[in-house]
Order: sequence, then structure tokens, then C-alpha cells
Amino acid sequence: MAPLPEADAMRRAILLAARGLGSTSPNPIVGCVVLDPAGEVVGEGWHERAGGPHAEVNALRQAGERARGGTAVVTLEPCNHTGRTGPCALALIDAGITRVVHAVADPHPLANGGAATLAAAGIDVEGGLLADEAAASNEAWLISVLRGRPFVLWKYAATLDGRIAALDGSSRWITGPQARADVHRLRSEADAVVVGSGTMAADDPHLAVRDHEHPGRPQPLRVVLDTAATATKAGARVLDGAAATLICVAEDAEAAHLPRGSLLRLPRAADGTGLDLTALLAALHDRDVRSVLLEGGPTLAGAFVRAGFVDKVVGYLAPALLGAGPTALGGAGITSIGRALRLDVAETTRFGPDLRITAYPRPATPDTRVTAAASATTEES
Amino acid sequence: MAPLPEADAMRRAILLAARGLGSTSPNPIVGCVVLDPAGEVVGEGWHERAGGPHAEVNALRQAGERARGGTAVVTLEPCNHTGRTGPCALALIDAGITRVVHAVADPHPLANGGAATLAAAGIDVEGGLLADEAAASNEAWLISVLRGRPFVLWKYAATLDGRIAALDGSSRWITGPQARADVHRLRSEADAVVVGSGTMAADDPHLAVRDHEHPGRPQPLRVVLDTAATATKAGARVLDGAAATLICVAEDAEAAHLPRGSLLRLPRAADGTGLDLTALLAALHDRDVRSVLLEGGPTLAGAFVRAGFVDKVVGYLAPALLGAGPTALGGAGITSIGRALRLDVAETTRFGPDLRITAYPRPATPDTRVTAAASATTEES
Ligand SMILES: NC(=O)c1ccc[n+]([C@@H]2O[C@H](COP(=O)([O-])OP(=O)(O)OC[C@H]3O[C@@H](n4cnc5c(N)ncnc54)[C@H](OP(=O)(O)O)[C@@H]3O)[C@@H](O)[C@H]2O)c1
Ligand SMILES: NC(=O)c1ccc[n+]([C@@H]2O[C@H](COP(=O)([O-])OP(=O)(O)OC[C@H]3O[C@@H](n4cnc5c(N)ncnc54)[C@H](OP(=O)(O)O)[C@@H]3O)[C@@H](O)[C@H]2O)c1
Repeated sequence: MAPLPEADAMRRAILLAARGLGSTSPNPIVGCVVLDPAGEVVGEGWHERAGGPHAEVNALRQAGERARGGTAVVTLEPCNHTGRTGPCALALIDAGITRVVHAVADPHPLANGGAATLAAAGIDVEGGLLADEAAASNEAWLISVLRGRPFVLWKYAATLDGRIAALDGSSRWITGPQARADVHRLRSEADAVVVGSGTMAADDPHLAVRDHEHPGRPQPLRVVLDTAATATKAGARVLDGAAATLICVAEDAEAAHLPRGSLLRLPRAADGTGLDLTALLAALHDRDVRSVLLEGGPTLAGAFVRAGFVDKVVGYLAPALLGAGPTALGGAGITSIGRALRLDVAETTRFGPDLRITAYPRPATPDTRVTAAASATTEES
Repeated sequence: MAPLPEADAMRRAILLAARGLGSTSPNPIVGCVVLDPAGEVVGEGWHERAGGPHAEVNALRQAGERARGGTAVVTLEPCNHTGRTGPCALALIDAGITRVVHAVADPHPLANGGAATLAAAGIDVEGGLLADEAAASNEAWLISVLRGRPFVLWKYAATLDGRIAALDGSSRWITGPQARADVHRLRSEADAVVVGSGTMAADDPHLAVRDHEHPGRPQPLRVVLDTAATATKAGARVLDGAAATLICVAEDAEAAHLPRGSLLRLPRAADGTGLDLTALLAALHDRDVRSVLLEGGPTLAGAFVRAGFVDKVVGYLAPALLGAGPTALGGAGITSIGRALRLDVAETTRFGPDLRITAYPRPATPDTRVTAAASATTEES
């Protein structure tokens, strides 16, 4: 085999890492390719699940003696701490690796320092190769470390005029099978899927991943915010055995009809609208949830937007018009155009007839917003 | 110069034709390229304005004697009737053209038969070359002939959650300058721009084309539907001299404050909501309007959708969320998801930060819609 340039090895490592999406929390996804001194691939590995061996260890195991004098290409700075597994920095040193190329520096307060340890052992260490690509596929974990709470991706499916259901409440199906399959992929990559009591009452959703592309991946935790415990009936579909479920209710809610193991009692929101979302995210974080797929509906999504808890938006837009019915987002607390939550579009993709828009909320810049609002009435139309 | 293949000549003719958009109604846009017997371009022309010479005549004039024995490549079947100008079929015969290649057959009851006349004169006639491309750029005129009323393009600008203004009514600006410039292009290509009294009252819009890319093009007719003549004040900006304007009011409306030359009295809609749209389109058609840009707002757009009068939709989607405020489309009379107006997306394009979606309403297929509605509650989510 021909030697593989390091950038190509990193691309391969990023692909390997992504196989761990949905399985590794509270850990990041990591991929590793080991090249021998001639630059040939002699080992590949990724972090498959929390508690399992790290990517470097898997790749080194495959490489065996051929790693000696070679290069390890890793998507994340090798860890330096002894958790459930030993530190990867030591494993690399022990295997005789002489060069380590990583993409993203480890932002985790407990784990970083791996690069320094490697360098101190005389290993040639280089960071930053394809850092943006590697960070993008690890965004949920990186943001969760940065914010100290799970990463939240809000997903919605709407018509071109922003309706998520018709006037009579019917919503099956707004989008086509390709878009709906993609939602199942999002679910399979998330640690938890969250809906509000409105969606529970209207749809009795199942929320588990169907036609799992990665049969080894755990099902996401199913989470329902049902303050008074009235929307979730004893026979609700989320209470089946397909996946673990948390029905979040107020501390004083009457919830005797629900299985005790599925109940999570949370404080009410300070403004009286439902449950405290900060407490919810903290409770999920405590359960090792690092990525949340917020599946709606509009009221809960509005509350997440209002709280500044939406890190990413994925909208599936069906080329259809309704002209009536509930809209994708409600009650986000925005009253004027200058206060609109502006997003940066990262990607638009066709899924069958539908369009998927992937976007990130732009950090608020109060000054320019005020300026925009002030000049709003002076231009012509 | 090297000889030009006929398909390339047709592509060129289609581009030339498009220069006439917005100027030729009630005529189609047409482009023509004349090739000499060696296949070299010796003449180019397009129909520049109603009443002016047709494309073929312009191209033949440029070619002069070099057209003899040559080929005329035309976007539309040459006309056969004597209107304000003589029939093009005769002009081609007189010029000594021996082959005519056209894209789209002329659907107009008065004008067709040109191909037969040419063939009877011994000219080699071929139709259908790049017919789809040529028909697409001439869609407004072709649809207007088919339906016997002006083609209607509904344009809207909304946030990702379908809002066209914030809760406080502010809407400047939802989209960025690139998208707004593209709206001016749409206006410049339309014969008339239509808004309702709600938009008039809220925005006092000007509706003329700004920064006209084609200074020779006439301004579109500005049309306001203001049943009671109360939204349009005496000093309204649409009443300036920038373009002709029609304020459409009910037959019994008190409209003494409005210039008589700008008034159009129309019957009220049978269902009592505003003016009769069939009568409006007929009145515009009588005034040689073949393409209408419907600029809103949501109420009027809903009425056009309900009547089946929307032939094309261009939506500018701003990557922003509002969570409150009026939505893009209202009162279209659709109550269940199975009755949604489904569209076929022809194109999605980025305009600066915004996304433009171009789509065509799909012809209603009642049977499959009923089936979709009937099975709506049986699938899982
Ligand atoms: N197309 C889509 O993408 C999509 C996705 C999901 C849902 N839907 C549709 O959305 C509709 C339901 O909409 P919805 O807005 O009523 O449902 P929702 O957002 O799922 O539920 C809202 C409810 O959640 C509860 N909640 C608990 N804590 C909350 C908090 N902190 N902030 C806000 N709400 C909190 C509140 O009721 P309590 O406090 O009383 O519990 C609230 O009324 C259904 O028709 C469903 O089909 C569509
Ligand atoms: N973002 C965008 O693309 C966009 C575009 C345009 C407007 N807007 C916004 O839309 C808002 C105005 O919305 P709107 O819905 O009130 O305005 P609209 O659709 O422009 O006007 C509606 C009014 O038109 C009159 N009308 C006359 N004949 C009608 C018919 N056959 N069917 C329906 N209506 C007829 C009716 O009032 P009368 O019968 O009493 O005359 C009706 O209330 C403003 O905030 C404006 O800024 C946004």
C-alpha cells in the first residue's frame, strides 16, 4: 500500500470518529489512524462507547509492533488522565509512537495536557490539522464542555409558510420519507430526545429510533416535559421497553399512574410556564447526556430559544402551503424585527421533495440590533 | 468565426429573448439568431417591445443579404398573422431563409400556423429544440395564453419560522440587500405589481422598480386592492409619477380623494371578502397585463391561493426566527394536511444570507390527497 498523507489520514480518522456518535457520552467521539514509519496505515480505531477503550488504544492494538517509530493521527488531543481506561498519552509513548498529529485541542479541564506529556517524552506533537472539520463532527461534546450543559439541537418540520400542522391538527405527513428517515438519524446520534406535553397529548409519539442504521448504538433517552403529569397516560407509547424514558413533572404533580422509575421531578420555571429548563438540562447532564434533540413542539422550542439554550437548528421545509395551523416556533419572547434571532446557515440539502436547512444561532450583538431597529422605518420599499 | 451549432444558437436566442421580459406584453418574448449557409452567426435580434418589430425581423435586418440560404433559429414558432407588424413567416420566406429551427410551438390561437406556412413554401422546419428552456423563460406569456388570464407569481419574504413581520409589525428588514435587489428584478420583469389594502395601510409602499438594470424597460403597473378606498391616502407614495397606478375599489366605494385616472371599480367577491379576483385579472388582461407579481400580504395571497390563481411561488427565507407575528400566508381555505397545496421546487439559491426558493403549485390530484389523509393517523412517529 502507498503511504497516506497525514491530512488524508485525519479525514479517515474523522470518519471513524463519527461512528461513535450517540454511543460515547459523556466522552467525545474520537478517531485515530496509526501510520508506520513509511507512512502506511497499520492501525485504525475509534472510541466506540463510554467505558470502552479509547480510539488510540484500539488503533495501537491493531498496529501492534508496526506502530514503533510511527505516527498517530488523532481527531482530538490524546487524553492525559486515568479514568475508566488509562491515559492515551502513555499508551502512545509505550507503543513507541514518535509523532502525534491531532486536530482539536482537548478543552476538557480534567483531560487536557496530553500534548505536553507527549512532548515531554520527546514525541513530535502537532495540533490543528483539519481542526474545523474535526470540531464540527464533535460539536455536541465540545459545546457541552464549553457551556457545562448538554448541546441542544432543535429540529422542526414545517411547510414553506412555517406551519407544523394543519388547522385541524393533522400533521402526518408534512415531510416525505427521506426527511423523516433523516430525523431518525438525528435521534440515533443524540443522547436524549425531548418533547413537551403538547406534543405528547397530540401525537402520543414513540420517540425511539426506527430502522437503526447502527444496531449497536444505544437508543436515546426519551424525555417528556409534562408539568402536571396529565398528558402522559399510563399506556403512553414512550413507556414501552424500546428505550429508557423520563417523564419530567413538577415536584407537586400527582403522578401515581406513571412508573416510578420513569419519573423525574423538577422545579417549576420561575415565570410559571412549565418546568425549569436549567434544572432539566442539569439533570440530563448528570445522567451523562451531552446532546439533546429537541423535537418540539413550538411552545417548548420557544421556551428553549427564549432561554438561549438552542445551539443548532435543523429545519425540514416541505414545499407545501397551508395558510393556517400552528407555526414552528411560538412564544420566544421576540417582539420586533431588530430582536429576531439571526442564524448562520451552514448547509441546505434536498431530501426527496423537502429541503433541510442546518443553521446556528448567531451570538447576540445588542448594539447592531438596536441600530437596525432604529433605522427600520427610514428605508424605502 | 467558426460555425455555431444550432443548439448553441438556440441558447443564445433564449438569452436574447429574455432581454424583452417586462416590455413585450401582450406579446411573448422571442429571440432569434440567423446563421448563414456556412453556419456562421450573421444576425441577432429579439422582440424589444410590444408594437416594435419581432425578433425575426430584427435579426434578418442585421443579416441582410447574408441570410439567403441560411437558417433562422427562433425561440418561438414564427407568427403567421398580420398584427401591428407583418407575419414573420413571410419575412423569413422573403429573406431567402431555407431552414427554420424553433423551440416552442406557438400556442396562441391567432398566431399559429407559421410552421405550416414556412413548410408550404419549401422551407425545412424543425420544432422542439431546447423547448423546455425556451418555455421556462417565456412561462408567463405561455401560461397567460393557456389560462386566458395573467400569469401570477406570488413572492414573499419570511423568516425560517414563516413570519413576514414581528409582533409589533416591524418588518424592515427581514431579508438582506441581495434578496431585496432580486425582488426589484422580479418587479422589472412583471407587467403589474399587486398588493392589498393591509400592506398599503401598514407600509405605504412605493412599488416601483429601483436601480433599474434595464433603463429602457417600462415600470410595472402598480395595483392596490383597497375595497373601501380607505387604506390609500391622497398622498400615498404609489400615486407619484414614477409609474402608472390602479387603485381598485368597490363599485360603491367613496373615493373622491383619489385621482380619477388611477381608479378601477371592481365588483366585490362573491364571498364578501374584498374584491372579485377573477374580475381583477380580467381587467388587467384587458390592459395587456400578462404577468402579475403578487407582493402580498398574507391575506391577499391566501385569497389568490384559494382561487387557484397562483402559478408560481418565490419565497425568500431569511435565516432568522421570530416566534410571533403574522405568517406568510393566511386564509387559503386549507384545513387538513391532506389538502395542503403541494409545490414542486424548481430551484433553491442563496442570496447573501438568505435563501430563495422557486416552486410551482402541483396540479390538484384529489384521489391521492384523500388517500394520504385517510392513512394519516395509522403510521408511527
Ligand atoms: N412538525 C414538527 O416538527 C413538530 C414537532 C413536535 C410537535 N409538533 C406538533 O406540535 C403540536 C404541539 O405543540 P405544543 O406547542 O402544544 O407542544 P409542546 O411544545 O410539545 O408542549 C408544550 C407544553 O410543554 C409543557 N412544558 C413544560 N415545561 C415547559 C417549559 N419550560 N416551557 C414551555 N413548555 C413547557 C407546557 O405544558 P405543561 O406545563 O402544562 O406541561 C407546554 O404547554 C402538536 O400538534 C404536534 O404534532 C410538530
Ligand atoms: N414579507 C413580505 O413578503 C410581505 C409582503 C407584503 C406585505 N407584508 C406585510 O403584510 C402585512 C399586511 O398583511 P395583510 O394580510 O393585512 O395585507 P394584504 O394582504 O396586503 O391586504 C389584505 C386586504 O386586501 C383587501 N382585499 C381586497 N380584495 C381582496 C380579496 N379578494 N381577498 C383578500 N383581500 C382582499 C382586504 O381588505 P379590504 O377589502 O378592506 O380592502 C384585505 O384585508 C403588513 O405588515 C406588511 O408589511 C409582508
